[in-house]
This record gives sequence, structure tokens and C-alpha cells, in this order.
Amino acid sequence: MNNTGLLVVFSGPSGVGKDTVLQRLLQRCPQVRLSVSATTRSPRAGEEDGKDYFFLDHEVFEEQIRQGKMLEYAEYCGNYYGTPSVPVETWMSQGNDVILEIEVQGGAQVQQKRKDCVSIFLLPPSMKVLENRLRGRGTEAEETIQKRMKAAREEVGKAFQYDYAVVNDDLEETVTTIIQILESEKFRVSRNKDFLERMLEIC
Amino acid sequence: MNNTGLLVVFSGPSGVGKDTVLQRLLQRCPQVRLSVSATTRSPRAGEEDGKDYFFLDHEVFEEQIRQGKMLEYAEYCGNYYGTPSVPVETWMSQGNDVILEIEVQGGAQVQQKRKDCVSIFLLPPSMKVLENRLRGRGTEAEETIQKRMKAAREEVGKAFQYDYAVVNDDLEETVTTIIQILESEKFRVSRNKDFLERMLEIC
Repeated sequence: MNNTGLLVVFSGPSGVGKDTVLQRLLQRCPQVRLSVSATTRSPRAGEEDGKDYFFLDHEVFEEQIRQGKMLEYAEYCGNYYGTPSVPVETWMSQGNDVILEIEVQGGAQVQQKRKDCVSIFLLPPSMKVLENRLRGRGTEAEETIQKRMKAAREEVGKAFQYDYAVVNDDLEETVTTIIQILESEKFRVSRNKDFLERMLEIC
Repeated sequence: MNNTGLLVVFSGPSGVGKDTVLQRLLQRCPQVRLSVSATTRSPRAGEEDGKDYFFLDHEVFEEQIRQGKMLEYAEYCGNYYGTPSVPVETWMSQGNDVILEIEVQGGAQVQQKRKDCVSIFLLPPSMKVLENRLRGRGTEAEETIQKRMKAAREEVGKAFQYDYAVVNDDLEETVTTIIQILESEKFRVSRNKDFLERMLEIC
């Protein structure tokens, strides 16, 4: 059947455990790749170009937007942040599933532009558990926590626009569910029309 | 999340191995149930009511059609054949995934009526392999085989209307793929809107 990798939009509120889930997913699935974002902000100490971010000049970033080479982008505090499409497409054509860990606005842009993407929203077991996790860090002022919870509620409200929602309770279970989603999506008829056409032509 | 079982439409051309796949699926997944069809034809020797078919009077069948209690039905050689909805709904509400093994016309009726169903089409590795399997039985006249292959090509042409297409090459792999599809479908946002609403209300 179709050997192209999947384009996966992966979102969830701050504190839900996206990074931990993705790190474990990468360990269990060697064909999965994480997309690297581009930004116009300056590299911080220890950040590597092409690994943490692609660090681009303002003009280069805007040129890529004009050429349609950003799957999604946003401006934040005077800097651009976005997902360059070329590395994503290259990986996909090599059969790698590429995961975009992005917030909901960026996720909406990708879903709009790429109808073939698979979108997964990571949920906490409950909003209370999420609040406890944020408090558990113990480093944040009450005001910061309230602000984050408000943002989290708004993010979770956007889960309705995603294909799948997975509750992150047990890490291994969560990762197994995501693997099953990726595996089964490859058998969607919409991704295998050429294969079906060929089967019918040959007979 | 949502505990209702899935309604699964399962089709594929004659000779593709649907029965073998379903028998193995039942062994591996205790929560899966096979829907039992209803018919107005007379029971043959050894056939059990409620197991092989629900044997119904002509009037009873037509009354069930009028009451909207047939998920799909067709008339064939003067007899009705169809899928009664009540046993299916009962199983689903108990958390069982219910599989309807039906041909493509019936499959289309169910997909039309029940937008929440999952439809899976079982494909042969190639049409040539299917032809060899049909010939392998060694009991059929050439004319019968040609007729079946014509019907098979028409059936496979309807695979485009299904959600998923799975090639039945290795039995265990096929069954594993179907299990993954059923598992991952349970995490679709469209099946878990109530769960999401509750999560947002409570916070």
C-alpha cells in the first residue's frame, strides 16, 4: 500500500506531558521524526541550529512565507515562529511519520492547509489533575498558575477540532494508543486510492 | 472516555477470506460480536434460529422495515435478508464492538443510516491471487469463476466508499491491523464529545 509517512499534528495544554510522551514514542518507533521549528529570534546559550530550531533571518523567514514554504507560522514578541515544509516533506517521502508539536492556532493552520494530516490532542485525566501537575512544580506564583489554567481550558476547548483525543494517564498506554492511531491511519482508503486504482487496472 | 461499542461494516469480495479473518478476530478479541442476519427464507437442515439467522415471517420482516428496525435489507429470489438493529444496539450499549459482515449494497445502506459506523474493506493481495484462490477450490466451472471474478471486480470498485482497506495476505497481520483500527477509532473526538464537554464543565 502507500509508503508515504504521515503528517501528524500533536497538541495539548501546557503541563499535560507532551514532551515525555513524544520522547517515549521516538524510543518505541524508529520511523517517527519530530519536526524542527524555525524562528527569527536569536539562539540562546546551548541551542543548536537545525536541532532546537532553524534560526533564520527575518527576510529569509518572510521569503519562505511568500513561497508557501511554511506549514504554519505566527508572530510572537516581534519574532516569527513556524514550521518549514521542506524537511517535513522530505521525511514523509522517505516513509517517516513526522510529528508537529504545535499549539492549537498552528494546528488549525496545518489542518486547513493539509487535509491529509492526522491530528491528535493530548488530554489530562481531568483539569484538576492538570492543575495539580502545574502546582506540583512548586515554582510558580498563584497568578501564573491561574493564567496557565485559563490558557489550558481554552486549549482543551479546541480539542473538538482534532481527529483524536488521548487521555495521558499511564505513559506506556498513551504511547501505545498513539502508535495504534498511526498504524491504523495508514490503512485509510483516502491514503490508498492509487493502490486501489492499480489493483483494479491490472485485473 | 466513551464506553459504547463500535458498529463495524465489514465487506470484501467472495474468496478473500472474510470468515477466516472474523473467526480469528473473535478468538483474539472477546468484546467483539458478529451480527446475526434475519431472513424470510426457510431454515435449511442444521440451521439454528438466532445463530445462523433470525428466521422471520414475511409480515414480521416487513413490519420491522416499516418500524425502521432493519439497519439494511435486500430482497433476493423472493426472500428478504437484512440486519435487525435491536440486537446490534443492545450489544453496543454493553460495550461490545459489533461486526456486520455484509456485501457492498448493504454496507452502503448502513453507512448512509449510521454515520458513526466504521467501515473496513478486506482486499486480496491482488486480483490474480483472488482468482487463484477461487480456482484453488477446484470445484467450479470456468464460467462460474469468470462470473465470480466479474462480481469481485465490481465489489473491489466499491472499496473507495469505505473508511479503511486492509490487504489479507498474512492472517495474523490482517487481524492485528483490524484490532488496531477498532482500538484507535475509540479515541476519535467525534465519539468522545460528551467526555470533552464534561471535562470542560467540571473545571
